[in-house]
Amino acid sequence: MIKVLMHGCNGKMGRMITGLVKEDEKLEIAAGVDAYTGTANDYPVFESISACDVDVDVAIDFSNAGAVDALLDYCVEKQVPVVLCTTGLSEEQLRKVEEVSKKVAVLKSANMSVGINLLLKLLKDAAKVLGPAGYDIELVERHHNQKLDAPSGTALALADSMNEALNGEYTYVYDRSQVRRKRDAKEMGISAVRGGTIVGDHEVIFAGPDEVIEFRHTAYSRSVFGKGAVEAAKFLAGQPAGMYDMSDVIQF
Amino acid sequence: MIKVLMHGCNGKMGRMITGLVKEDEKLEIAAGVDAYTGTANDYPVFESISACDVDVDVAIDFSNAGAVDALLDYCVEKQVPVVLCTTGLSEEQLRKVEEVSKKVAVLKSANMSVGINLLLKLLKDAAKVLGPAGYDIELVERHHNQKLDAPSGTALALADSMNEALNGEYTYVYDRSQVRRKRDAKEMGISAVRGGTIVGDHEVIFAGPDEVIEFRHTAYSRSVFGKGAVEAAKFLAGQPAGMYDMSDVIQF
Amino acid sequence: MIKVLMHGCNGKMGRMITGLVKEDEKLEIAAGVDAYTGTANDYPVFESISACDVDVDVAIDFSNAGAVDALLDYCVEKQVPVVLCTTGLSEEQLRKVEEVSKKVAVLKSANMSVGINLLLKLLKDAAKVLGPAGYDIELVERHHNQKLDAPSGTALALADSMNEALNGEYTYVYDRSQVRRKRDAKEMGISAVRGGTIVGDHEVIFAGPDEVIEFRHTAYSRSVFGKGAVEAAKFLAGQPAGMYDMSDVIQF
Amino acid sequence: MIKVLMHGCNGKMGRMITGLVKEDEKLEIAAGVDAYTGTANDYPVFESISACDVDVDVAIDFSNAGAVDALLDYCVEKQVPVVLCTTGLSEEQLRKVEEVSKKVAVLKSANMSVGINLLLKLLKDAAKVLGPAGYDIELVERHHNQKLDAPSGTALALADSMNEALNGEYTYVYDRSQVRRKRDAKEMGISAVRGGTIVGDHEVIFAGPDEVIEFRHTAYSRSVFGKGAVEAAKFLAGQPAGMYDMSDVIQF
Repeated sequence: MIKVLMHGCNGKMGRMITGLVKEDEKLEIAAGVDAYTGTANDYPVFESISACDVDVDVAIDFSNAGAVDALLDYCVEKQVPVVLCTTGLSEEQLRKVEEVSKKVAVLKSANMSVGINLLLKLLKDAAKVLGPAGYDIELVERHHNQKLDAPSGTALALADSMNEALNGEYTYVYDRSQVRRKRDAKEMGISAVRGGTIVGDHEVIFAGPDEVIEFRHTAYSRSVFGKGAVEAAKFLAGQPAGMYDMSDVIQF
Repeated sequence: MIKVLMHGCNGKMGRMITGLVKEDEKLEIAAGVDAYTGTANDYPVFESISACDVDVDVAIDFSNAGAVDALLDYCVEKQVPVVLCTTGLSEEQLRKVEEVSKKVAVLKSANMSVGINLLLKLLKDAAKVLGPAGYDIELVERHHNQKLDAPSGTALALADSMNEALNGEYTYVYDRSQVRRKRDAKEMGISAVRGGTIVGDHEVIFAGPDEVIEFRHTAYSRSVFGKGAVEAAKFLAGQPAGMYDMSDVIQF
Repeated sequence: MIKVLMHGCNGKMGRMITGLVKEDEKLEIAAGVDAYTGTANDYPVFESISACDVDVDVAIDFSNAGAVDALLDYCVEKQVPVVLCTTGLSEEQLRKVEEVSKKVAVLKSANMSVGINLLLKLLKDAAKVLGPAGYDIELVERHHNQKLDAPSGTALALADSMNEALNGEYTYVYDRSQVRRKRDAKEMGISAVRGGTIVGDHEVIFAGPDEVIEFRHTAYSRSVFGKGAVEAAKFLAGQPAGMYDMSDVIQF
Repeated sequence: MIKVLMHGCNGKMGRMITGLVKEDEKLEIAAGVDAYTGTANDYPVFESISACDVDVDVAIDFSNAGAVDALLDYCVEKQVPVVLCTTGLSEEQLRKVEEVSKKVAVLKSANMSVGINLLLKLLKDAAKVLGPAGYDIELVERHHNQKLDAPSGTALALADSMNEALNGEYTYVYDRSQVRRKRDAKEMGISAVRGGTIVGDHEVIFAGPDEVIEFRHTAYSRSVFGKGAVEAAKFLAGQPAGMYDMSDVIQF
């Protein structure tokens, strides 16, 4: 049994992962960390990572940016690989993550779902063929009305993935209402739709002469991200130091 | 047989309408007007409307903003109803159109297709129910990479139609990438996708708690606009002075 | 406070509605009925409706066909209006529901979501215009891979609603692979896609000359049905005997 | 200049290709063959291939099954590579095509568009990852109301391409309305929507736990097939004997 430390165990994602791990035969949660300890968990919960004295094989983090530094220090000290799912890290923290990955295994992805990570790969292949052939590339993403940032980190990751395959020649355009001019061949339009409780839709459009090719991903619940994190934890336990992402977990 | 004056007869839309009218048993083109007269037409073509001396029952206009004033004067003088499809008219011209409609029948619509005009009506009904019930409203339109303006006039007409049904309380948002904040309940996001040769797609999204309702219109060729203009001409011939639009032509 | 009897309170939908009612200021669950009584509920739970001795204002039913007859008898005897959400009733049971509705208020709908019920109305309007104008009508529905029946009851309700508006002249076609012939103008194709955990998507397509108009509903979770049932219960409490459906609840 | 024989030059596709070749700097049509010779072409037109005495480098065929045998004989005798776009060939003819390809270059594809041929490749990659991971695979295609066969040859080619990548373990299901049972994991549902003038839409759906990944291709006009044929002709001129398809033309 792989022993998991659930960092942020009483948040929405932490509770979901607790449920997912219960149904998994290869993993168990050995300890949790959360500032809020007022619930009854099936495992010991500590207010902060520094108080945790349970031995674990891997950590899953769905906490908040402020709690990540202490977790990283702990992972280096105890040599615990960590699946890092908290978003909104500062530039400084991202550099620290890089440093930490030289000493212990760290897995970090813009989006934990199998589908999005498969698309990241296929879109590269598509962009390499369709970009030089003159097809225009556009992205539309949709999220719930409580989301603060736009476009989504996943949309930017999809765009970056294609742009990388196209030698970084494209610029991103977020608004076309302020200018009166034809589209430039080397731009990627990125539109952000917000409404209701939409979990996360991403659509990539290749528009050529008289034909359109579309790739679309729809998440129906956040559990797709939780499942990805659980698979990532299984993969990461026992891995040597290094920077990993979901493409290492999913065998293409 | 209803006699049609085709104003702008040698442009892309004028030639298409010429073809459509040929297959129609109720209409015939009696005269055309176009600055370019170098083609062989089946009807007399005049360089300007002032040179035209043929009697007609109705005019269809797909020319350019600069040619519209003279046409309007002609229609008042000769009492010829006019289907006005040229876009990009100035504020002053729009006021003139209003004045002219007091003396002769004028039909003007943001979009001539049956489908879009049906949606204009149904979206009003939908907005009246879903807006107050807390559903967020968003629009995404797609057009070819040669289009200069964004969003499309049709997208704005769809938004205006819903906003009117909602007491004008909504504001339009074209870009969410520059601010970091939650969506306001009384905003309508309008996104413009540009690429390839897309004729014109319009999608209206109502996003509520755990459900999304979408209305989508796809034009496969510009002939949908030509067909609408031909139907409009049939309807308008013989009508008294007044301002008309496609909702008068399509019997809902 | 409106007192609700939750019939089938420990099933998936019963538990969800219990949660929804807790957050509602106008309703409370006064009693539950479920064959399974092994959970801790906040209200008294009876093994069968005959054992229930709590006074209630309205019943919500998400049980199974076998339990519906006893509930209907109870509702007539106690004069309790009932929101009937159990599907798969027999012909005989449907006749009984009709009879019961002469003595007490009964609300029954193919689908409890606000969005689908709005579409039922708008599609009638669309079909009346586009059907006679020669637009072909097709439906595609998508559901999870555990669903036994195809097409869904909701897809059939949408088709029936349009067919009714078109004088019942259309026939439904579920398979085109066995014949080699052109589509008949008076057919409606109904396709059923099955896969994953899709909650329920319904798409209605009007395809005409060079344009397509689509109406699409996506449910992201079953809670849309629970919410509809809660709204229906609020509406139904205190109503006179009669047959009601969701179009009475949603004010168009 | 590559000299093209346009076989079926006065049909819809033949005339379109004539137009496309006119704008191309590397090709010219040196001769046409068509049973109907009543139009004015810019090149000599022969009633049958046996009458054609013009030297050409490559043939493009958009004729009909009855005319293909003579063309194949001609191509072998004159050593002219041939882009074979006529559909509905008999089993016997398909065997002959195989034989012919041992003596001269033959290119044959279910669909000539760049987009569909790219999808054929990417869907294989997707199926290999998502099939074994338990994602259900479904296809929905849409075509105009005059199409005789269902599902389309392109839909079957897409399904075959994925099935091949999955060791041929899947069976195709065209109708779910006649049985009451859960979906089998190893089936691919294929649905055919028919309506209006839709040129050709193909959608492949991978539905997994709480997520859906979709690939969609929309053709806005038949010119996408013509363009593919022109590119294929450029590629095929000068190639050695063998069986080719569009994946040889498009460099992935």
